[in-house]
Amino acid sequence: MYAIAAFAVGVGMVAAAHRAAAEDAVAGRQKALQCQACHGLDGLAKIPGAPHIGGQVKEYLVKSMRDYKSGMRKDEMMAVVMRQLSEQDIEDLAAYYAGIGPQAKGER
Amino acid sequence: MYAIAAFAVGVGMVAAAHRAAAEDAVAGRQKALQCQACHGLDGLAKIPGAPHIGGQVKEYLVKSMRDYKSGMRKDEMMAVVMRQLSEQDIEDLAAYYAGIGPQAKGER
Repeated sequence: MYAIAAFAVGVGMVAAAHRAAAEDAVAGRQKALQCQACHGLDGLAKIPGAPHIGGQVKEYLVKSMRDYKSGMRKDEMMAVVMRQLSEQDIEDLAAYYAGIGPQAKGER
Repeated sequence: MYAIAAFAVGVGMVAAAHRAAAEDAVAGRQKALQCQACHGLDGLAKIPGAPHIGGQVKEYLVKSMRDYKSGMRKDEMMAVVMRQLSEQDIEDLAAYYAGIGPQAKGER
């Protein structure tokens, strides 16, 4: 919990520096609580068949969520979850998950 | 090129140790030459909107490619590429891309 709290404070500082875009990531982290059973708060898949999404390309994450929401892409679990999410939620979640993980940090 | 050659030798040694599964990754690396313009040989996206796929969950990569091939998932570029690929190609490519990158190496 302390690590998570410290991370949240860190993100908050980034948000203060970068205004709206990073504030979305802070909101996204809170919204990601409903994603964590499958994708983790760290963006690493927790169940078979789910993809890792930490550090994924933000535009790709947004498109994926929109396609699940519209029914263009089909997955039972994602259809249920996306039914509850707004366009703002999608943007916030994409900002959060795109900004974490090794690919986001350039650790390759 | 030396780094790539050394990597290929390394994968070859793994293949010798692990038999069929790792041999698929070696074949997959060769087949990945047709993927690199968008996804890179390192699995990092090279064009806007394409996802990073290095270190992605293998089963997810297989499902994604099958869905693009069947038309269940729609993307013009992927539709063209998948038309040429067999089930064996899909397995080999998934083995290659799942086995590279920080998530595959546990660098988190």
